[in-house]
Amino acid sequence: MRVEIINTGSELMLGFVLNTHQQWLCRQFSDLGLNVDRQVAIHDDGVSIQQAVKEAVQRAELVITTGGLGPTSDDITRDLVAQLFGLSLKEDPRIIADISEFFARRSRPMPASTRVQAMVPEGALVLWNHHGTAPGLALPTPRGWLVMLPGPPRELRPMFRDQLIPLLSKWFPTPATFACHSLKTTGLGESFVEELIAPALSSLVDQGVSIGYCARIGEVDVRLTARGEDSSELVAEAVIVTRRLLGERVFSETQEDLAAVIVRLLTVNSHTLAIAESCTGGYVANRITNVPGASSVFLAGLVTYSNAAKTDFLGVRPSTLEKHGAVSEATALEMATGVRNRTGATYALSLTGIAGPSGGTAEKPVGTVFVGFASPEGSIVQRFLYQYDRETFKFCASQQALDLLRRGLSQSKVSM
Amino acid sequence: MRVEIINTGSELMLGFVLNTHQQWLCRQFSDLGLNVDRQVAIHDDGVSIQQAVKEAVQRAELVITTGGLGPTSDDITRDLVAQLFGLSLKEDPRIIADISEFFARRSRPMPASTRVQAMVPEGALVLWNHHGTAPGLALPTPRGWLVMLPGPPRELRPMFRDQLIPLLSKWFPTPATFACHSLKTTGLGESFVEELIAPALSSLVDQGVSIGYCARIGEVDVRLTARGEDSSELVAEAVIVTRRLLGERVFSETQEDLAAVIVRLLTVNSHTLAIAESCTGGYVANRITNVPGASSVFLAGLVTYSNAAKTDFLGVRPSTLEKHGAVSEATALEMATGVRNRTGATYALSLTGIAGPSGGTAEKPVGTVFVGFASPEGSIVQRFLYQYDRETFKFCASQQALDLLRRGLSQSKVSM
Repeated sequence: MRVEIINTGSELMLGFVLNTHQQWLCRQFSDLGLNVDRQVAIHDDGVSIQQAVKEAVQRAELVITTGGLGPTSDDITRDLVAQLFGLSLKEDPRIIADISEFFARRSRPMPASTRVQAMVPEGALVLWNHHGTAPGLALPTPRGWLVMLPGPPRELRPMFRDQLIPLLSKWFPTPATFACHSLKTTGLGESFVEELIAPALSSLVDQGVSIGYCARIGEVDVRLTARGEDSSELVAEAVIVTRRLLGERVFSETQEDLAAVIVRLLTVNSHTLAIAESCTGGYVANRITNVPGASSVFLAGLVTYSNAAKTDFLGVRPSTLEKHGAVSEATALEMATGVRNRTGATYALSLTGIAGPSGGTAEKPVGTVFVGFASPEGSIVQRFLYQYDRETFKFCASQQALDLLRRGLSQSKVSM
Repeated sequence: MRVEIINTGSELMLGFVLNTHQQWLCRQFSDLGLNVDRQVAIHDDGVSIQQAVKEAVQRAELVITTGGLGPTSDDITRDLVAQLFGLSLKEDPRIIADISEFFARRSRPMPASTRVQAMVPEGALVLWNHHGTAPGLALPTPRGWLVMLPGPPRELRPMFRDQLIPLLSKWFPTPATFACHSLKTTGLGESFVEELIAPALSSLVDQGVSIGYCARIGEVDVRLTARGEDSSELVAEAVIVTRRLLGERVFSETQEDLAAVIVRLLTVNSHTLAIAESCTGGYVANRITNVPGASSVFLAGLVTYSNAAKTDFLGVRPSTLEKHGAVSEATALEMATGVRNRTGATYALSLTGIAGPSGGTAEKPVGTVFVGFASPEGSIVQRFLYQYDRETFKFCASQQALDLLRRGLSQSKVSM
């Protein structure tokens, strides 16, 4: 079965906004065991939209369009698709009632322009919009279905999950069952992960398991999938092998990111965390505080950019700074122990390095970072080198620091 | 002239990564006065890539592909394109030398697999990769050119800017001159910006100026463009009108973001900054420290998440926390003055609020934030409400704080 996505919107083509629909929809489909074969983005104009839809419905059983269903003059997908299929549009009184209620609940008058959203091509199914006014529309095509979804993500996503997924399993009963499991790892490059697990998984691959690697900087996801009657058992076996071989490199088997894992581990054990950052400039604290509930475990993050701040707020000794420099093992150690002592946190992290583009030396080139970890059991400092642009450097250093902390937490006999 | 972009990579189609190339490339082209007509994303497989390239080169004068030029088994774009055009591949000794040098500089052996990146289809131009090992390739097509760029953004972007843009103006001499100027604003929604400037610009619009609005949360860009002989004069006139009407809402007329503007303003005046954050958890410090050179003006950022940290590191009085709460005007004021006094910075910002999803009350609902600003001239606190998810809340609060600081700096008789 072939799936294609068509994203409409001149704001996409002018580079004014990022197309987040592609990733989100592709991920939803791949977790359902469906493969998106092609995604196209085009301007809001008649020729482009009709041509893209015409091509796609000839190739694919399922075609999804996003955007162009609203009340403004550039929202033309509904009309163009009806015209392309030679269908007349008719106002649906249920949608008018729904839109009226939407405005009534907000004590606002219903603008006349919104009535156009109640126009439905003959033979189309209506997907109700519980987070906005433009309903989605599904039209049968010679090969399958064309589904038009609204552009705003907060409207599209619940409509997809709550209304489209049930329809998909009705329209396209899966010929074979599908099983999928992902393991998120950090600390090893893609080729090392592959070398570690591929030989041991080869017999399961022969039986139908597929191994996918998704490498980003600092993280590799291993995705194990299979189809058919035995798919669940096969994937479960592959997961056991992968877990055993990758060991503590695996930090999550859900969609949870590294910061969320840490907040969860700290929370269940009623432990607390403090962070002292220099080169990462608050990025590590920001990742931790992106996790809802971080306030119950995170006490403080000190971004001590200047030497004076390192001394005043963390108690780093001026003699240490003078003798070893701000970017040194000794300073990282005093930063970690200093922020731990001064906040009373169970655990502390520290980072000091050279983000660049300038400031490097032969001995400590741009990209050098010292990461410190202080715990009730003692302290350690590790040295790394990440020669990237400033923001990538920050991410890599933060990933290393969070992983050092995660392993420290796991070693403290804390279950994942 | 028609431009199309083809993004290859199964990681895109499985929804594992966000396609940032589309936005970046589309923005580059629109600033050059060129329109991207279609963007396609497909899997790394022979049929999909060859079909997409074949279709695109038949329609478009310029076709850009991204990805698939590296050394691994799924990097097949180079070979498939050569096959499609019936071209043989030949190893280019200059590329071998370039790759060898790349590894030598890093004191690493050159893996044999990287040699494949030196294979060049006959008749192709080589675009040198100064940030990685896979060069870009440009091939003449019946309608114009096909350009293959490497996938990693840190390799693609400088290659596009430094090597492709000069080639584009040679390949496609602009038939009519094009003028474009963007003004970045904050503090007003899109419709308010439009109401303020559209009437006064209407006569220039009649003469050929186009006004584009690009609204993101917390920012609206106004993009003024024109084509033809008088385009520069027309756009310059429109810029003057827009500047006058939007006044200090305009924070940048280059691509500079708000944090970069602030670092520049502080630097030229040899002033310093310190930040005390609670609800934003380091996000404001992170934005400031993303700017190269921030270390010369940014002294410290204190992420005081707990009440104890607010007292210990900033000197917020326990009685203030008890009487008014951590999320209050009084606490924000003491945080800003506290961090300014303790670091000796010229200026200080503070933020305390409720990021959610829990923790709100009737009087202070989720999304409430107090932003404090302390300067040699005195201190102020402003209250805002941003009812979004946690990360969007952080962005909005940081934007408000940075804008308060920017206006404070501008008022101190500092030229923009």
